[in-house]
Amino acid sequence: MPNTNSPLDELLEHTRETALLESTMALLEWDEHTGLPEQASEYRAQQLMLLSGLVHQRRTDPRMREWLDDCESSDKSRDPNSPVGTCIRCIRRDYERHVRLPESLVKEIAHATSMGQQAWVKAKRENDFASFAPRLHDIVRLRREEAALLTDGKAPLYDALLDQYEEGAESGTVRKVFEDLREALVPLIQSAVQGSSSHPSFQDGDFDVDSQREFSRWVAEKIGFDFSRGRLDETEHPFCTTLGPHDHRILTRYHPDSFSSGLLGVLHEAGHGMYEQGFDMDWFGTPVASAASLGVHESQSRLWENLVGLSEPFWEWCLPSARKWFPQLNSLSVDRAVTDLNRVRRSLIRIEADEVTYNLHILIRFELELELIENRLEVQDLPVAWGDKYQAYLGIRPGTDTEGVLQDVHWSAGLIGYFPTYTLGNIYSAQLFEAADRDLGGVDALVRQGEFAPLLEWLRKHIHGYGRRYEPMALIERATGQPISSVPLVKHLQRKVERQIRSN
Amino acid sequence: MPNTNSPLDELLEHTRETALLESTMALLEWDEHTGLPEQASEYRAQQLMLLSGLVHQRRTDPRMREWLDDCESSDKSRDPNSPVGTCIRCIRRDYERHVRLPESLVKEIAHATSMGQQAWVKAKRENDFASFAPRLHDIVRLRREEAALLTDGKAPLYDALLDQYEEGAESGTVRKVFEDLREALVPLIQSAVQGSSSHPSFQDGDFDVDSQREFSRWVAEKIGFDFSRGRLDETEHPFCTTLGPHDHRILTRYHPDSFSSGLLGVLHEAGHGMYEQGFDMDWFGTPVASAASLGVHESQSRLWENLVGLSEPFWEWCLPSARKWFPQLNSLSVDRAVTDLNRVRRSLIRIEADEVTYNLHILIRFELELELIENRLEVQDLPVAWGDKYQAYLGIRPGTDTEGVLQDVHWSAGLIGYFPTYTLGNIYSAQLFEAADRDLGGVDALVRQGEFAPLLEWLRKHIHGYGRRYEPMALIERATGQPISSVPLVKHLQRKVERQIRSN
Repeated sequence: MPNTNSPLDELLEHTRETALLESTMALLEWDEHTGLPEQASEYRAQQLMLLSGLVHQRRTDPRMREWLDDCESSDKSRDPNSPVGTCIRCIRRDYERHVRLPESLVKEIAHATSMGQQAWVKAKRENDFASFAPRLHDIVRLRREEAALLTDGKAPLYDALLDQYEEGAESGTVRKVFEDLREALVPLIQSAVQGSSSHPSFQDGDFDVDSQREFSRWVAEKIGFDFSRGRLDETEHPFCTTLGPHDHRILTRYHPDSFSSGLLGVLHEAGHGMYEQGFDMDWFGTPVASAASLGVHESQSRLWENLVGLSEPFWEWCLPSARKWFPQLNSLSVDRAVTDLNRVRRSLIRIEADEVTYNLHILIRFELELELIENRLEVQDLPVAWGDKYQAYLGIRPGTDTEGVLQDVHWSAGLIGYFPTYTLGNIYSAQLFEAADRDLGGVDALVRQGEFAPLLEWLRKHIHGYGRRYEPMALIERATGQPISSVPLVKHLQRKVERQIRSN
Repeated sequence: MPNTNSPLDELLEHTRETALLESTMALLEWDEHTGLPEQASEYRAQQLMLLSGLVHQRRTDPRMREWLDDCESSDKSRDPNSPVGTCIRCIRRDYERHVRLPESLVKEIAHATSMGQQAWVKAKRENDFASFAPRLHDIVRLRREEAALLTDGKAPLYDALLDQYEEGAESGTVRKVFEDLREALVPLIQSAVQGSSSHPSFQDGDFDVDSQREFSRWVAEKIGFDFSRGRLDETEHPFCTTLGPHDHRILTRYHPDSFSSGLLGVLHEAGHGMYEQGFDMDWFGTPVASAASLGVHESQSRLWENLVGLSEPFWEWCLPSARKWFPQLNSLSVDRAVTDLNRVRRSLIRIEADEVTYNLHILIRFELELELIENRLEVQDLPVAWGDKYQAYLGIRPGTDTEGVLQDVHWSAGLIGYFPTYTLGNIYSAQLFEAADRDLGGVDALVRQGEFAPLLEWLRKHIHGYGRRYEPMALIERATGQPISSVPLVKHLQRKVERQIRSN
């Protein structure tokens, strides 16, 4: 047993023990969102603060550096993408980030974002950007400071922020791919909107919430979410969380007047959940069994929500079953359902946007936050810049800041560099779907039969099982044989728009 | 600010921080019982083990002794029952218990009880006491060893065990009170069983579980359980837990074929929950806002379940409302309902026993475990001794050990000295009800109107608000003006039996 108590063992045991505390925090948070008694929030915050202090201590434990130094020097030829190599590489990377930032800055950021979110809630409610601007100015300044410490002047500041959500991604690459996407989307949306239908929606009705619960659970199980290792619960803002190697929880919400938002929400969260259920659990609590990036995570949710859930084959399979729960769908045709669910509209609000327009909302945010970090735009000028971009790309301009620059919580919470991962996820999802379609000899035929296992297996094999072993863009390239590209997404959206125009 | 960072401040802050971890463990356990995915148990056990290690470290932190020494010497005239005095007294008491036991013994006990429970499950299933006897023998030996270390030869061994569940209780006192109770109960049960009815039960039917959920929640709210600071959920083995000063969770289960077990279970757990909701929350995480003992806890659950929930005034109030949920109760009279719910039967199984016979089940267990600890009975002779006592007190003898000495999990889990707290709870509950009845000028009239607030307020004032400020028996004496006595319980049960005989 030459490895007993080796630095590697110590490092991994320490890391796995930290994960026990992190997953306990995840339970405290899950419970906070599934029915914490009204008056219990303050104590819950104290519990979380204590655990987060313990986790921080463990992440910055000076023994970490010794173990890492020992591991790195003991075998210099180790494959950095092997499981052990991945652990050492990623733990080193995370450790350096945690120790490089002085506690004073971390506290300043925590304070500024806490103030920022409070100010944002009020500013959004009162359509008062001016009251929020000084808070956002502070946040941008502090995150630039953070980025400067992290990059050591070796990379653009924005890259250091982006890198926290999308490991190894560079703003130059992202900007190029996003520009291609934008150039294709702007004209596509024009033709889509011109050819759009004005039929009333089949969803104008009352969809029993209990039936939605049962039906959504049934669908989640069918596509492959494993309920012996997971749960489906309800909450205000849907999410997915992992509390252990065999404990993946997805949360959604149902509206009696929108059948599809509940169902598509479950497909989205189940996509996230199935990703984490597909990790190599022998390595749970280490980077080998962690998400590659937010973009890759989003590619999994979007693949099931959009590429599968909004497709004609899916509704051919799903509609007959849906009618058992919802008799009001008896007279609805598959064609009508798919056309209805895929309607393209110019809209101001990101989270209400359809699949075709959605990415323009993201591109606008990406371009603006990049300008903020690169000091090419002042916070006070954001509302005008926002309106100009909406006018230029989507042909509409918000009448108020509430339905414009104040609509999202992200910047107020310090999340700069985060928005692009949504569109990266969409881009990856289309690349992955195209590659799976090729490898499996046609996914549509499988979906039409309700056979989802081959697609899930393909994703397990090419994405899930790798965890953080490859950086996200390298992982996508290995899985698809192609570097990151917006072409498959654009093709998919073009086909969608053509179908809509034909069908109306 | 002379107290800043005083030893007392440090001690209290340390104690409150430990409570943050303990309440986090309570959430991990609550979640384990409300729908943890099948495959998630093993990781959950690891999370709990890590936290329990952290809690143990904190409880035995050497700084605790220094702070306690400093606090004790700084003010020798401090009232030991004042809030601060209570903290110092109780924290010292708990600390000494935690440090007095060598880690090797603690581990041996943990191992023996883990083996014990596994062996018990199998032995109960296979009616094979002989296979369990060696495990129980080990457990008794280890707990005697523990007791010897804790008492320093200053008290009977059994008292050191009892004291862990019922602070300050002495086996001599308990034995005397229990003997009085037994002498009254044995003949009372004979006359009750002779006068018992053979009417079919109104509960032979189907009670919709969703309606039971709604109705039970409505009743819990009416009697005073505060849902803005609590929840009601479902689980296999009902319990109550506290996750924060404003987060009290009660759990129950419903059977479609027994309406009363669900309702009475909710009254029982709500009684526990309302006790903890009544602590002085400024002191949450300290002994001032902790339960006085298991017996006092049980007195609260039993008061609401038995003294209120099984009474005629309660059903006069409750039956008309129950009919809204359960139309099958339309033809049931209050008299019939109360008679039916209070049927007295000789039975072998403790948890199925009625209120009148229940305490004899406990007395038998108390007498036997006392003999085991005092070395007057060998484990191998338990089954015969068990049968003899059931024959002598209840007039029946179990045909198998499964329905005899193997029926309860407690001993296999090392819980010796725990059973008496059930009957102490019943005794306290009758004493408290009698005192409240006197102070409030008649509780029945209030209950008949659905006015539960005065009774709850009385309990808040005389019991809940004190936490551990007085030892349990002193607390009961302060609240009722009487030392512990079985007389009120016997009177209550006699009235109940007389009513049953009249009604049949």
